[in-house]
Amino acid sequence: MSERSALIVGAGDAIGAAILKKFARAGYTSVGVRRNPEKISSVIDELKKEGHKALALKCDARKEDEIKELFSKIETDIAPLEVVVFNVGANVPMKIVETSTKKFYKIWEMACFGGFLTGREAAKYLLPRKKGTIIFTGATASLRGAAGFGAFASAKSGLRAVAQSLAREIMPQGIHVSHVVIDAAVDTEFVRQIIPQLKPERQANDIVNPDSIAELYYQIHLQSPDAWTFEADFRPWCEKW
Amino acid sequence: MSERSALIVGAGDAIGAAILKKFARAGYTSVGVRRNPEKISSVIDELKKEGHKALALKCDARKEDEIKELFSKIETDIAPLEVVVFNVGANVPMKIVETSTKKFYKIWEMACFGGFLTGREAAKYLLPRKKGTIIFTGATASLRGAAGFGAFASAKSGLRAVAQSLAREIMPQGIHVSHVVIDAAVDTEFVRQIIPQLKPERQANDIVNPDSIAELYYQIHLQSPDAWTFEADFRPWCEKW
Amino acid sequence: MSERSALIVGAGDAIGAAILKKFARAGYTSVGVRRNPEKISSVIDELKKEGHKALALKCDARKEDEIKELFSKIETDIAPLEVVVFNVGANVPMKIVETSTKKFYKIWEMACFGGFLTGREAAKYLLPRKKGTIIFTGATASLRGAAGFGAFASAKSGLRAVAQSLAREIMPQGIHVSHVVIDAAVDTEFVRQIIPQLKPERQANDIVNPDSIAELYYQIHLQSPDAWTFEADFRPWCEKW
Amino acid sequence: MSERSALIVGAGDAIGAAILKKFARAGYTSVGVRRNPEKISSVIDELKKEGHKALALKCDARKEDEIKELFSKIETDIAPLEVVVFNVGANVPMKIVETSTKKFYKIWEMACFGGFLTGREAAKYLLPRKKGTIIFTGATASLRGAAGFGAFASAKSGLRAVAQSLAREIMPQGIHVSHVVIDAAVDTEFVRQIIPQLKPERQANDIVNPDSIAELYYQIHLQSPDAWTFEADFRPWCEKW
Repeated sequence: MSERSALIVGAGDAIGAAILKKFARAGYTSVGVRRNPEKISSVIDELKKEGHKALALKCDARKEDEIKELFSKIETDIAPLEVVVFNVGANVPMKIVETSTKKFYKIWEMACFGGFLTGREAAKYLLPRKKGTIIFTGATASLRGAAGFGAFASAKSGLRAVAQSLAREIMPQGIHVSHVVIDAAVDTEFVRQIIPQLKPERQANDIVNPDSIAELYYQIHLQSPDAWTFEADFRPWCEKW
Repeated sequence: MSERSALIVGAGDAIGAAILKKFARAGYTSVGVRRNPEKISSVIDELKKEGHKALALKCDARKEDEIKELFSKIETDIAPLEVVVFNVGANVPMKIVETSTKKFYKIWEMACFGGFLTGREAAKYLLPRKKGTIIFTGATASLRGAAGFGAFASAKSGLRAVAQSLAREIMPQGIHVSHVVIDAAVDTEFVRQIIPQLKPERQANDIVNPDSIAELYYQIHLQSPDAWTFEADFRPWCEKW
Repeated sequence: MSERSALIVGAGDAIGAAILKKFARAGYTSVGVRRNPEKISSVIDELKKEGHKALALKCDARKEDEIKELFSKIETDIAPLEVVVFNVGANVPMKIVETSTKKFYKIWEMACFGGFLTGREAAKYLLPRKKGTIIFTGATASLRGAAGFGAFASAKSGLRAVAQSLAREIMPQGIHVSHVVIDAAVDTEFVRQIIPQLKPERQANDIVNPDSIAELYYQIHLQSPDAWTFEADFRPWCEKW
Repeated sequence: MSERSALIVGAGDAIGAAILKKFARAGYTSVGVRRNPEKISSVIDELKKEGHKALALKCDARKEDEIKELFSKIETDIAPLEVVVFNVGANVPMKIVETSTKKFYKIWEMACFGGFLTGREAAKYLLPRKKGTIIFTGATASLRGAAGFGAFASAKSGLRAVAQSLAREIMPQGIHVSHVVIDAAVDTEFVRQIIPQLKPERQANDIVNPDSIAELYYQIHLQSPDAWTFEADFRPWCEKW
């Protein structure tokens, strides 16, 4: 049993993996959760080789029983949670009239409902100890619904409201809740695939490096209780906004 | 067959009934929709006695097939739609940690998902005619998540994002989309029950009259295409905000 | 002496003139104020020929003594004020590093400071009667500072904060305060000069008609005290936002 | 001549002094500016004893020529600027109708106009080097005008718009611009005087410690250009919002 753990729900893409690494290297038992945990096994191996504690678990964040079991398992078998990050994304651009009921539902289930379940369960474990940090990953779509992003903006706006209510409810009980607005494309394999034309025009620092996000999340966690950030945005220097 | 119809989804409480009356008296075939349409039969009767066209239909706004059938029926059997109002509310105050999965889901399904279905189907019928108005009823919770209102704020924020995306997508095609933020208790039977203490302290005009909301919705519909309001808030003169 | 008057501070461009006409035709003694009142003499003549009461007065809204004298004169010699509109604009696009101290100051003095003086004096006269409406004209720049609009956005954001504070202070005393966000170019001679290329691409309703703004202001004034709008935006159907 | 300097305009209260100390201890020649520089002489002495470089200069941030001279002097005689913080506050609560023209003007001049001058001059020196950070201190009043805070909210909203425009203009040229929203009373002598009743009810961490603000400003400055925060809020764990 380690002293304390950090949980990253949605540890699949580059961001989740970077946060996982950051907290592992900072001395936490870092638990990365996704539906296909084998996809981050190389990250886990890398961290273990460095002598850090890290593991990947399988969990579908949309399933109440799986989320409950996940928290119970971590607290019982691994280490008390100190940091919980909800980082599940699900952006599929399409117009409202072209959005199938199934897609609208699924995007919400992943990006908002899973965040509610994660935040609620995290709060239950952290509240009795009056200590800990819960961070939700937001996006520009968390702030407004642009054309072509209805389903995603709806889910992300819903997640932000969950974070706001949770913050107002449990910050006065000693739990730091934060919502980080990433206003940019992030340098992931997915982004490189969908916007390959991005590359030639872009230089170093033109696209968000996942490690920079991880650093910000870690800084937010380190904040003293007299000065807790609820919301911070960020974007690369060259981003139009 | 009448010339044109107005549809109010969520025509149960005082607001929906007031909007129903407003559009009926303005010459529309006014269609009120709720799960128990018999509950507004007296409103329908009143309008009919006055010589207006109005009817109540049964529909669960959370069911795609029911919503699709509703739109098809109105367009085929009743009159072309010119105005569609989504007015389903579902506020149940509770803290995030006390919010059951079932309640969170149900509040979203009613206040957000039903609005997506209604807005999407409305857009499909209005777009080819390049004419019409879609209005969503919002609340203070549409703008931020206060303590004790997580589920409601999440759903309402999600609905607002749907309205924003839809507006940006179809206003340039001639359809007016609007989101009205009601920042107040409205004078309904429900409000009188849950806040009976409200009454003695309150005078005339201290609480929103549903007819005032209906008037605003009607004014929004009347706006010229060169000056369309997307968002307007309102509250009684004495409201703290 | 008439029964009641409406004052439009900044009655120079098309918007101010349209509001002046609207209230004159609605039965108010309509008072248009600008630094060169002779520029709206044709509007005044037109209204008088129609049998309405209207006049133009000279006043620099940035001068406390001139504003005070203006209010005193209207209340003493003309008619009790019921509506006060602050409509002075001063948009001069330029980057912050290229903005001279003089320009920054002047834009603020016209678009914000004059609004403070107008709102404050209006409140003093309306409060004892517990009746009346004060409307401030806002713009997209009231909500955020875009590149190239620093001075204007700073002044307009400052004006919006004045309107918000004033609303929260005096709405509970019976005075309706409103801030209207015009998110568009308005069809004025000035706009036609600076964006002549606008014309060919634009059709009817593609640019805000000043009369539509005047209509909205009038509707806001007519609202019942149980449902007062503080903020409403509007833009033409085809506007990108 | 040192390698690089940090300038804090408004280095009078506890916040400014804390930021001054933070950057001096981080290796910058830290320059604190206020109208009465002798008031921070003890802070300067403390830093010098520790072996750091720090000095206090006299400057009225509302005077263009004094600000220009200040920047010129620092760049010529002291060290190239890398960090510029604008931290002048001027909160005097009062209702709009009770706000004298003189007070409204003075609050704006201090909290907004001085920020424009500081930001503009900072940009001029930093742009050719494509490097540096400009941070503006904001408050809850930067976001909305509450009752009793009209003049302050107007000035702070105006300052935020300056920061937003400046950020959009010069971040793509390599200068980091940030606006920090302090949503709390800060533990200063002034606060202790005006809200002495605060003390008994408050415990450790119940009120913002100036050093925590300084830490956040420093972290913002350290951010990598691929992930720059424009706006972050913070408040103590127990704050209601």
